[in-house]
Amino acid sequence: MKTILRTGLALAAALVIAAPAAAAGKTMAEVLEASKPTDWRTLDPENTLYLELGSGRVVIELAPQFAPKHVENVRALVRGKYFDGLTIVRSQDNFVVQWADPADADHKKPLGAAKKTLEPEFERRAAGIKFIALPDPDTYAPQTGFVDGFPAARDKADGTAWPVHCYAMVGAGRDNGVDTGPGTEIYVVSGHAPRQLDRNVALFGRVVYGMEWLAVMPRGPAPMGFYTKAEDRVPIREIRVAADVPADQRTKLELLRTDTQTFTDLIEARRNRQDEWYKYKANRIDVCNVPLPVRLAK
Amino acid sequence: MKTILRTGLALAAALVIAAPAAAAGKTMAEVLEASKPTDWRTLDPENTLYLELGSGRVVIELAPQFAPKHVENVRALVRGKYFDGLTIVRSQDNFVVQWADPADADHKKPLGAAKKTLEPEFERRAAGIKFIALPDPDTYAPQTGFVDGFPAARDKADGTAWPVHCYAMVGAGRDNGVDTGPGTEIYVVSGHAPRQLDRNVALFGRVVYGMEWLAVMPRGPAPMGFYTKAEDRVPIREIRVAADVPADQRTKLELLRTDTQTFTDLIEARRNRQDEWYKYKANRIDVCNVPLPVRLAK
Repeated sequence: MKTILRTGLALAAALVIAAPAAAAGKTMAEVLEASKPTDWRTLDPENTLYLELGSGRVVIELAPQFAPKHVENVRALVRGKYFDGLTIVRSQDNFVVQWADPADADHKKPLGAAKKTLEPEFERRAAGIKFIALPDPDTYAPQTGFVDGFPAARDKADGTAWPVHCYAMVGAGRDNGVDTGPGTEIYVVSGHAPRQLDRNVALFGRVVYGMEWLAVMPRGPAPMGFYTKAEDRVPIREIRVAADVPADQRTKLELLRTDTQTFTDLIEARRNRQDEWYKYKANRIDVCNVPLPVRLAK
Repeated sequence: MKTILRTGLALAAALVIAAPAAAAGKTMAEVLEASKPTDWRTLDPENTLYLELGSGRVVIELAPQFAPKHVENVRALVRGKYFDGLTIVRSQDNFVVQWADPADADHKKPLGAAKKTLEPEFERRAAGIKFIALPDPDTYAPQTGFVDGFPAARDKADGTAWPVHCYAMVGAGRDNGVDTGPGTEIYVVSGHAPRQLDRNVALFGRVVYGMEWLAVMPRGPAPMGFYTKAEDRVPIREIRVAADVPADQRTKLELLRTDTQTFTDLIEARRNRQDEWYKYKANRIDVCNVPLPVRLAK
């Protein structure tokens, strides 16, 4: 059967430009095959959310290194069972899926211990984070790369860094005021990276498993993909902090560390595909096109 | 209700950098509001396909300016009813949806007047096309822009141009041989732009309406998103060339011409968002983030 991607291991006698020796001629499958156990990390249960839908579990890794106050507030909302029984309110094609209190214009559901407003956490000081830079130019930022598994950007000129709006990134929807996004409305990027949102809103996590359950939400008929009928809104059974879930009910994942030679090799394998299928090698990669491998622990 | 996008008409007293006078301070809604009837075009029915799914109609505009032989062959397949009764065989999260003969390893369904192999049409001479260039850098190509409503790139150094793999672009899946993609297996980009495919495969069209029906296809469980059970494969009722459909059953669309001042103004409105919601203006745009407005004719 014809496919538009091949994962075969046959190596083409290919033109490899500027590839580090370690990665030259390797496919991503081969790079992962050669990975060491120490190249992989597990999730911190305190920084992991389980969003339970009827269709399946969505696992979100939180990013306190970028948005500590938002992470803390979302955790308080989750532990106060704020989201349980709420619904997906919006699915806009090629943009975002969002959940919230459908009746929350006046915050009908009490926020419990969580705050109603939060100061913006749209960017941070670049100092103090380990930034794994990509070699290629980016349309939007002076430099892109990865911080602890999250796609990110930085500007050496002004000393700031920020997570970027790639597919599966999770943020706190807000109104026009910069402090109006306390995490009561959560969106997940479900289309081509809407990078215009970078530095405008607090990204506080990323879906690392189960993104397909959110991605296939029927698109809502109203402007911006909002649903208009209550029965079209998919219910959220519950959201839990993984640490509060019995160990035997947790989803045991391993994520490839982005501060490893293996990840650097993976980037190179994706910049210049070694599969025989590829006739023209890009010799470039966009930060949102770099896969962030996740596997179920054995 | 909080949203992460605002479409209100209130103008912020905003920092506008390098915006042409015509567009300064306008939102996309305002740009479209001010458009003239001549800014819009209709589809050529001979270059339009209707993919009929149980959920709705998907409208594809063909791109003979980039892949004339593929367009001709796909039209022959469609007119020979090759696709009718076949199925969606693959939906890979954040990548592509694809349809084909599930049993076509040996081309069980006859191809009729269509060819089994086709010479590659992955790029063309840049001369002879009207290329509307974007001002911003791109990760993958020396220059990006639009040709007759299709996102595209060109390289002035080697004199070539090619359509690019943005969301909703339609291509002819192929095997390892460059001539093995005659249009019997068709893929549509359903995730973040997989630009590594550029110049590797023949893009021959774009979904201009109904993309949401393809985007929500459940992801297949096998590698690369293939379905494993016959009952999971969504049937294709039929595909028709719009010219062969009675006029009163056609979907009457108007598409914003990309070679107009209105489209240039739209690009500027999206490079620097004027909505009050935006606090940080990107002053940049990625070719795959530029909306290509389509409306139902009155």
